[in-house]
Formats: sequence, C-alpha cells, structure tokens
Amino acid sequence: MSPSPYTQLEQEWRRLHAFHGALALLRWDAAVMMPRGSAEVRGEQLAALETEHHALLTTPRITRLLDRAQANAQGLADWQVANLREMRRQRDHAIATPASLIARMARATARAEAAWIEARKANSFQLFAPHLEQVLQLVRDKAALLGQALGLPPYYALVDEFSPGLSADDIDTIFKALSRRLPGLIRETLALQGEQPALPIAGKFAAAKQRALVVEVMRAIGFPFDRGRLDESEHPFTEGVAGDIRVTTRFDSADLFTGLLGALHESGHAMYDLGLPQAWRDQPVGRDRGMALEESQALLLEMFVGRSRPFVGYLRPLLEKHFAVTGPEWLPENLYRWLTRVQRSLIRVDADELTYPLHILLRYELEKKLLSGELAVPDLPDAWNEGMEQRLEVRPTGASDGCLQDIHWALGSFGYFPSYVLGAVMAAQLWESLREGVPGLDEQVAAGDFSGLFGWLGDNVHGLGAKVTVKELMKHATGQPLSASALLRHLEHKYLESRA
Amino acid sequence: MSPSPYTQLEQEWRRLHAFHGALALLRWDAAVMMPRGSAEVRGEQLAALETEHHALLTTPRITRLLDRAQANAQGLADWQVANLREMRRQRDHAIATPASLIARMARATARAEAAWIEARKANSFQLFAPHLEQVLQLVRDKAALLGQALGLPPYYALVDEFSPGLSADDIDTIFKALSRRLPGLIRETLALQGEQPALPIAGKFAAAKQRALVVEVMRAIGFPFDRGRLDESEHPFTEGVAGDIRVTTRFDSADLFTGLLGALHESGHAMYDLGLPQAWRDQPVGRDRGMALEESQALLLEMFVGRSRPFVGYLRPLLEKHFAVTGPEWLPENLYRWLTRVQRSLIRVDADELTYPLHILLRYELEKKLLSGELAVPDLPDAWNEGMEQRLEVRPTGASDGCLQDIHWALGSFGYFPSYVLGAVMAAQLWESLREGVPGLDEQVAAGDFSGLFGWLGDNVHGLGAKVTVKELMKHATGQPLSASALLRHLEHKYLESRA
Repeated sequence: MSPSPYTQLEQEWRRLHAFHGALALLRWDAAVMMPRGSAEVRGEQLAALETEHHALLTTPRITRLLDRAQANAQGLADWQVANLREMRRQRDHAIATPASLIARMARATARAEAAWIEARKANSFQLFAPHLEQVLQLVRDKAALLGQALGLPPYYALVDEFSPGLSADDIDTIFKALSRRLPGLIRETLALQGEQPALPIAGKFAAAKQRALVVEVMRAIGFPFDRGRLDESEHPFTEGVAGDIRVTTRFDSADLFTGLLGALHESGHAMYDLGLPQAWRDQPVGRDRGMALEESQALLLEMFVGRSRPFVGYLRPLLEKHFAVTGPEWLPENLYRWLTRVQRSLIRVDADELTYPLHILLRYELEKKLLSGELAVPDLPDAWNEGMEQRLEVRPTGASDGCLQDIHWALGSFGYFPSYVLGAVMAAQLWESLREGVPGLDEQVAAGDFSGLFGWLGDNVHGLGAKVTVKELMKHATGQPLSASALLRHLEHKYLESRA
Repeated sequence: MSPSPYTQLEQEWRRLHAFHGALALLRWDAAVMMPRGSAEVRGEQLAALETEHHALLTTPRITRLLDRAQANAQGLADWQVANLREMRRQRDHAIATPASLIARMARATARAEAAWIEARKANSFQLFAPHLEQVLQLVRDKAALLGQALGLPPYYALVDEFSPGLSADDIDTIFKALSRRLPGLIRETLALQGEQPALPIAGKFAAAKQRALVVEVMRAIGFPFDRGRLDESEHPFTEGVAGDIRVTTRFDSADLFTGLLGALHESGHAMYDLGLPQAWRDQPVGRDRGMALEESQALLLEMFVGRSRPFVGYLRPLLEKHFAVTGPEWLPENLYRWLTRVQRSLIRVDADELTYPLHILLRYELEKKLLSGELAVPDLPDAWNEGMEQRLEVRPTGASDGCLQDIHWALGSFGYFPSYVLGAVMAAQLWESLREGVPGLDEQVAAGDFSGLFGWLGDNVHGLGAKVTVKELMKHATGQPLSASALLRHLEHKYLESRA
C-alpha cells in the first residue's frame, strides 16, 4: 500500500523544510561571514535554491495531493488538518506568482537596491525614482495576481504574507485608534520627561566586554548556545530553524545599549522559533505564525521586558561586573529613564516605543497610495515630508533622512511595514495577560529568572506553531479580540502614570 | 528559435554549479561555525540538496540533451567539446548509482562514522567491524554498478572518481616503483639524520599570533581575502568555489608549524581553485581535474615550497617579527632540518614526505582486498599490523593507532587513498619542470615573491580546468608521461644528496 496523499505531502514538506533551512544559512553567511567579493556567487546560489524551492512547491503533483488529501480529511488529527490548510496557503501564495515574475522582480530589486544605496549617499531621490517605478509596476502585478488568488484587495494580499489572517478592517481599526491617541500621548510624555530628564550615559565600551554581557543575559533567558550562535552584523537579525538558530547584533563602542537591546530583540525572535512544536518542526503547521506575531515576541523582550524597572534591577549588577561602572547616571532609576526616553526623530529604526507607530502609519498610508497609483512616485518626497510634519512635527532635511531611509520598497517589500505595529499591538495584549498569568513576574525578572515568562509564552504562543490563526491565538491567549487598547493602556501607564 | 541542446546543457549546469556551491557552504559551516547540537538538522539539509542535485543530474532530459548535443558537436569550440565530455562523465557517474543505494549508503555511513568514533575511543576494532561490513557491502554494489557503466574493474571505477583517467596499470606501475626504492631511501635518510639531528623547536605560540603570521604568508602567496576566508577547524580543509573559497587550519600552541603548514597545504588547494578558468567557472570543464591533481597542488606548496631552504629564508624574519624568537634552534639550517626530519611512525596524517607513501601503499593493498573479498573484515587488524611491520618496521599498539586511525572507510571512501600518493608523484614531476621554466625561483621564494611559481602553475595547470585529461596535462606541462621517477629523484636529492 502506498502512503496516503497526506503522508506524501508531509514527505514533500520535509524536503521543502530542508531547502528553507539551507537558504537561511546562505543568507546568514552572506550577512555575517561571507567575503565582500563573493556577493555575486552567493546571489546565484540563492536564486537557484529559491527557484527550485518554488518549483517543488508548485508542481501539479502537490496540487493533486492537496486536493486528494483535503477530500479525505476524515481520520486526520486536528494538527494535520491545520497542516493541510497551511500547506495549501503556502502553495496558493507560491503559485499565484509565476516564476517569470519572480525572476523579473529579482533583477529589478537587485538594480533598485544598488540604486538606493547610491541615491542615499547622494541624498537624491531622482536617482532612485525610476527604479522604484519599475519595482512598483512588478509589485502591482504581483499584488493583483495574489489578490485574485486569495480573494483579497491587492494591497492586503501583500500584507497577508506577513500578517496572515488580518483584514483591511482589522488593521484600519487598530491604526485609527493609535493615530487618534498617540500624538497627545507623545506631547504629554515629552512635557513630563522635560521636567525630569535622564542624566546622559556615555563612555567607551569594548565590544568583547559587551559581548560577554550579552551572552550572560542570553544564557539567563535560556538561549541554547549548543543549537544557536550569536554573531555581529551591520543590521541585527535572526535566521535559521529551531535546531540551528542564529542571532546577530551590532555593538557600538559609544553606546552600551545598542548591542544589548538589539540582542534582546533578536533573542525574542529566536526564543519563539526555538519554542515552536518540535514534533511538527519540518511541517508548515510547525512554523511561526507570520512576521507580525514574530515581531510581537521580539518587542516583548526588547520593549516590555528589557526596558522595565525589574529588568534594570537585574541588569545593574551585571553592568558593574562587566564594566565597573559608577556614578549617579548608573543608578537604577536613571538607567530606566535613559532606556525609556522619548524623542521626535526622523529615523524609524532609532525611534522609541511611543513615536515608532507613527513612523509606520505614514509608510502604511503612502505605500497603499503608491500601489493604487493615487500617489505618483515623483510626488513621494513631498508627501513623506508633509506626513512627517503632520504626524511627528519634524521635517526631513533631505531624501536620505526622509523617504530613502528604509530599504523595504527597493526590495519590493510592500505590505511589510504594518507588521511592526501589529507586533507591538499583539505584544501589549499578550503582556497584560502574561502578567496576570504569571504572579511574581517582576520579582522573577529582577532575579534574572525568565522561566515564568517563557513558560507562559510557550504554552500560549510558541507551542502552537501555525495551528490556529493569529486572531484565534490572541483570543485564546488573552480572552479578548485583537485591538489597540492594550498597547495604549501600556503606553499611558509606562510613560505617564508610572513615572517616579 | 529555442536554444541549442548544448546551450541548454550549459544552463542546466549553471544551476547544478549553484547547488554545488551551496552544498560546499553547508559543509564548511558544519565544520567551522555550526553549534554542536545542530548536526542532525544539517544532515537533513545536506541530504535534501544532494538528493536534488543527483535528481537534476540524472533526469532523462539531461541524457536526451547530451545525446543530441554530442550528435551535433560540429561548430562547438574545443572547450565546449571537452565540456560535453565532462558533463557526460558526471552524468555517467551519477546515474550508475541509484538514489536508493545513495540513501542506504548515507544511513550506513552515518552509523559507521558514529561507531568509528566510539571504537577509536575504546581502542576496539570489534565495535567497528559490523558497521564496516555493512558499508563494504554497499560499496561493493556501488563499485560493481560503476564498473559496469564505465567499463572498469570495480575498484578502479571507484578510483576514477578521485583520480580520473588513471588506469590500474598506471597506478600499479607507479606504486611498484615507490615500493621498491622507498624502504632503502628511508633507511639511508634515517642514518644520515641520526648523525646530524635537528635541535628541537619548542615553545608556546599564541593562536592569534600564529594566525597573523599565516595571514601574512597567505597574502604574500596571493590568497584573495576579499573572495576567501581563513578559519580554524579540527582537520584543515578547503571548501567553496572560485568566487568564495574557504580555507581552514588548526593551530597548536605547542607547535608553530602545524598551523602554518596546514594553511600552506590548503592554500595550495585554494590557489588551484581560484586559478581555474573564470570564463567556464560554472561549467564542468571549469572544475578542478580531480582529487589527485588537487593534492599535487597542495603538496607543491606544503612540501616542495614550504619545506625548502628558500622558504625558510623567507620565513625566518617573519618568525622573528611575530614571535621574537632567538637561539640556535631558530637558525635557518636548523629550521630546515626540523621541517624535513624523517621518522618511522604509526599515524599517516603525522607522517613525513618520505614515509607517507608507504602508509598509502598499505591502505591501497588492503582496501582492494577488502573490496574483492580476499581479505575478510575480521582479519583486517592483523593484516594492517603485519603490513606496517613489513613496510615501516613499526607495529601499532592497538586498533586506534592501527587500522582505526582513518575515517575514510567508515565514510565509504574506498579508492580515495591512492590520490594522496599520485598527488605527490604529480607534484614532483611538475616541480621539476617548474624549476626549469621559472629561472630564479629560489631567489623569488626567498624574497616572498610567489608570482613566478603561480604564473607557471596558472599557465600549465590551473588555467586548464578539466579541459584535458590528467595524463595529457602532465605530458603537456612536463614533456614526460606520468611516472614516479621525478618523485624518487626529488626525495633522493632532498634527503640524501643536498644535506648540508
């Protein structure tokens, strides 16, 4: 008797998972280890493996097996039914985009990325505009095809890749709530912080010592160095699969916290990936539940845990141990103020927790208009600068600290930005329930004990993989539908009510 | 008009080359960077990519295209005709071994490797014997199939993978000549060296300083650090493709030369790979001409250049610079004696240039008998120990310093060992012509100028890729057919005639 269609599909995905892991390693190496001159060779390797991965995922055989398995789903366990749904989802996303479009996109984005680098250096949007135009044409094609296949409006079909299961309404409702309250909250916070500014923290902090501190913190968190690595790269990231997870950070000798908080953020991703259900590890149902939930796990650790008084209490003796720091600026309350200071700034990646969502809201609005054609590419810089003034009361000095600051659009990543804010929204909502569910959490964190934190996350988030939708997961974990309320409560409390 | 069959084949091999490079990176990472606990995950990734590579290479489409291209070869350039021949060769090797046999071999060798590690620790051949028996059965199947497909005796079909184009007669003639002369040469050398022993060189040499020395030497050689890396691993090796080549060595703090000579050996491989014809870099005709010739390039740099008086002259000031060494043992003539001392020893990888071939001759003899069944697995340890006594006048104390010392058989690598000695034979023959062709070579090397050396090797070896057979290459480069004479002349001269 030959294996059932479902069993054959599991076998196919085992192979796809191996490709997925190999691709992750090739990308990790490119960012961390690869000699500079080898980029072209690596590009060819990535393209060949990605093409093959796409081809394996879109064969008629897979479609046939999916049809047969879904027609005979009785007798399958719950997780297998969910696995079939996720297989179909992957296949639908892949098959909607023909290989020829993927190839054109790869070439256009490679050129656009190079032009973006030059344009940023020259502070000239004109250099980038024609490339963005080309990429945008292809993204429109992709969005239209994907939208048709998934029955979604074009832009939200792109969003679905990163924030699966969240509709235009879901996102708009959340973003409107934030848009209404954040400007006032920022104003009040700035007034309050102006009265009690943090003493600046400066110094020279050797990378090797910073690394030792980060490793000690990551060990306390539970990062398994026998199945993972910590390295350095220009932009921190996490790559790999649960059995071999690789985190990077960037050490700045003038700023002790860049490297540490970068590593915390990435460790949040890594702990999610490591906590995914081991039994389904090579199946779609065993994967993470999309970029927005991934981001929530990173922000939980970086923003909610890492920039909290209990964590500062834990960190303080470690700073003394590794850097022998003394002086009033290193007292716990000042450290906390330093880590939670708010500024209206031009650059998204440097923004604090409170202003960050407004950076995203602007991008969300603009990329929707670019995609629909409502905003023409040449008009982007002005629209950007006006949006920044309206929302954040700051105006870029040029394209480089304006609409050229992010690489996403050059790479064709439209629909990605919302996941950053949706991640913060999810993190806040999970954080509320987590604090109820783990009595004594603050004392645990202050003592460097993260077992309660990750125990709860393991049960309610990590261990579910992709078995349920994001909305189901949030409802089940928190008892509430997904909304911006928890994030707004968190920000009110942290930045206004609980100031010492 | 659709592309010609030949052009389509080039496209197919471009993709295979990308897989080949990706696999190389996965292996490099496993040996150099990978966390210990990730071996299983990596094993699955390697298996999936190797299986896919094998499948791509053995599709009926490839066979059809090869048939059509070879039937219409008029109009193809020389190198394209050679490329077709090499494509066919790769395909013939791949198709002779069915995927099911490859899978069984992968499982059996994985188990055998684990058992080999345990058996070595326990110094017990019994623990390893049943696994060797299983691997041997599968290797026999493979050799029989490959032999049939290639029209070669089974053992020599295996040899053909590593030393392509060399027949049983070629190898036997060479090995007999060495077998006749080496024992006497070793005796005479030991007597001579006994009269003038080298002063021992000892000390503590920090790995970071050794690395700095090695990097300086590799830069002088011409290793391009913008398209390659130097790292550390338990066993030195070279991996990668011409655009991204990765060399490793192993630093021993008690021995300054282990790391340096390991790096020289691997740099020999790397310089060959880097010198392959750039225009054919993703085609079979642009690959190296097999392991034996690869080894010749490694030995040329390690043994012929690295253990020579001119190189010692170049090295001496670097040792002073990096380690501030003083004392009579660091004088050039003593350094040279130390680097060329000969010992009858039990372990192949520690053996010197003069005794090394005898270690190989024993393995060659035994693995042929194991394959044919003339030698039964349980009788291997006795046969090994007797062979060592006969050839090298030393007797292992147990299995660990006897027939368990090498990993090759556990991995199913039968037919590989001869390439080590054939490499030395080729190196010596090339070395003779090289010295004629590059006047002032000694002075160049003594001045740290390796351009003459690599200029000649580039013209006569590296730049040819796999366009001609090994025998053609040797004939063309040296004017002589391949034989052991040059190696024997080299050893006579180096160890007897030119002693100071």
